[in-house]
Amino acid sequence: MAEAAYIAVDWGTTSFRLWLMDGDHRVLAERRSGEGMTTAAETGFSQVLETHLAAVSAGADLPVIICGMAGARQGWVEAGYVDAPAPLAAVLDGAVRVPGETRDIRILPGIAQRAETAPDVMRGEETQLLGALGPSSTGKALVCMPGTHSKWVNVEDSRVTSFASFMTGEVFDVITKHSILKHAVAGAEAFDASHPAFQAAVVKAAAEPALLTSLIFTARSGQLLHGLDATGAAARLSGTLIGAEIAGGIHAAGRRPDLVRLVASGRLQGLYEGALAALGLAFETIDADLAVRQGLAAAAQSLFLSHARIPA
Amino acid sequence: MAEAAYIAVDWGTTSFRLWLMDGDHRVLAERRSGEGMTTAAETGFSQVLETHLAAVSAGADLPVIICGMAGARQGWVEAGYVDAPAPLAAVLDGAVRVPGETRDIRILPGIAQRAETAPDVMRGEETQLLGALGPSSTGKALVCMPGTHSKWVNVEDSRVTSFASFMTGEVFDVITKHSILKHAVAGAEAFDASHPAFQAAVVKAAAEPALLTSLIFTARSGQLLHGLDATGAAARLSGTLIGAEIAGGIHAAGRRPDLVRLVASGRLQGLYEGALAALGLAFETIDADLAVRQGLAAAAQSLFLSHARIPA
Repeated sequence: MAEAAYIAVDWGTTSFRLWLMDGDHRVLAERRSGEGMTTAAETGFSQVLETHLAAVSAGADLPVIICGMAGARQGWVEAGYVDAPAPLAAVLDGAVRVPGETRDIRILPGIAQRAETAPDVMRGEETQLLGALGPSSTGKALVCMPGTHSKWVNVEDSRVTSFASFMTGEVFDVITKHSILKHAVAGAEAFDASHPAFQAAVVKAAAEPALLTSLIFTARSGQLLHGLDATGAAARLSGTLIGAEIAGGIHAAGRRPDLVRLVASGRLQGLYEGALAALGLAFETIDADLAVRQGLAAAAQSLFLSHARIPA
Repeated sequence: MAEAAYIAVDWGTTSFRLWLMDGDHRVLAERRSGEGMTTAAETGFSQVLETHLAAVSAGADLPVIICGMAGARQGWVEAGYVDAPAPLAAVLDGAVRVPGETRDIRILPGIAQRAETAPDVMRGEETQLLGALGPSSTGKALVCMPGTHSKWVNVEDSRVTSFASFMTGEVFDVITKHSILKHAVAGAEAFDASHPAFQAAVVKAAAEPALLTSLIFTARSGQLLHGLDATGAAARLSGTLIGAEIAGGIHAAGRRPDLVRLVASGRLQGLYEGALAALGLAFETIDADLAVRQGLAAAAQSLFLSHARIPA
């Protein structure tokens, strides 16, 4: 077995993923848990990390590179933001070392857009972007990164020029759990992007995004008047929110792109691929899990492997 | 004191309002409570009504006219829907008598729009419309009725030709209570339509409604980056949702109206008046409380006062 060289951690609000990596950035071991920032803020970040490090038998001198909400103000150590427009590689320079730990643990910063009319922040996605595009991509790219707070990012010659967050995932979650629409989706089964209600909703919402809060109500009225079933109602809500997001992402970018770079995996990958296809938008998918690991690898290469290590 | 002639009841999802009326449609007594459909479905509609009738010493032979969710499938007695396009007065013909009651109690139907692409329903607002515009209005009117599920209604020569619901009030409620935005608005104080954050958000969202789920995220990022306070965050969220609704209502109507008929009262009246003014839209406000009472009065006149009563 190859020798471990560093630990990579993607530490989100509600999820924790850790990889034991060798010097050629190959995965030697992996850990996944629900001990995200919210949990770790109560149980202790150091303790959560050490438990997982012990589980993969990580040597005491292995350095750790972390991205995500662990660097938020409410996280472990605040890692601040790099201000956009900024080269993606600038996040490497903004890594913050966790004080009081004998192990070399660094947390990468997020990216902030401070424009008065469109303030926005990302934390974790900058590392995915770095992994997805590399530190020296050329030309323009419009990147869609679906999630709880989806990001649409304009990158030009490996610089983040602007971006916008859309609360697609979280709005879907709160309206299906806490609004009158919870009755419409009660008992819904799994659906995918081929569901006709999803397809139709994507097209409708993208064409008429001003109707967003009206179109979601049709999940209920469609049930009352047309016998729309719970799965169809859920598919309609999902398609409506994703369709409106795509229209918004393209609107914010100021142009209809030749190609959308989709950074996604799992269920969201299928839904967004289906939605982009329904809208006639060409796309190229980059696996989100791989992207974040590649971004963390680039950081590890830069911070730990190419340079003399900072002594504790 | 004038003699009581009938009882008018506006029975919504979460609210109950009752008026003891004389034969000239003047209010003799009023009751308000939180015993809406949700509560009454558990404690019993008949019992809730009788308690309030006793409180205003209503005679045993006084008839009762009811509008709102008491006529929903989950309500007291299902009163069905009149299908749009329909004359407003058609709701009078659709009144359903509550069986098994010695008192003459009628519940007005809602209005349904069965179009495959825009199914929609209203229940209670049809009575407000009848009261606001009267049964024989002429010309075109675009009516905005703000609320949990705001309605934008096209009326032409006293016929409802089309309408759209917008979940403005409920989306505001669930995102400020259950999403990450609850932190942004924690401790927010009361604001009105003159708040700069409200005004700016109305204009921005109406101009770029495709950005809705992105603009709401700026309540959080504005706080992280610009020191936006909780009240400003709440005002921004409210303005964003109302601005997008107005853009959507006008989009759905297919025309920029010369005049918006706003049927509102209380806090929502002020916010919507401020929002319409910020967008340079002329409006005329009709008090929503008065409108529903006038609608119920029109129904009572037609059903109880102008005709022989239906024997029990």
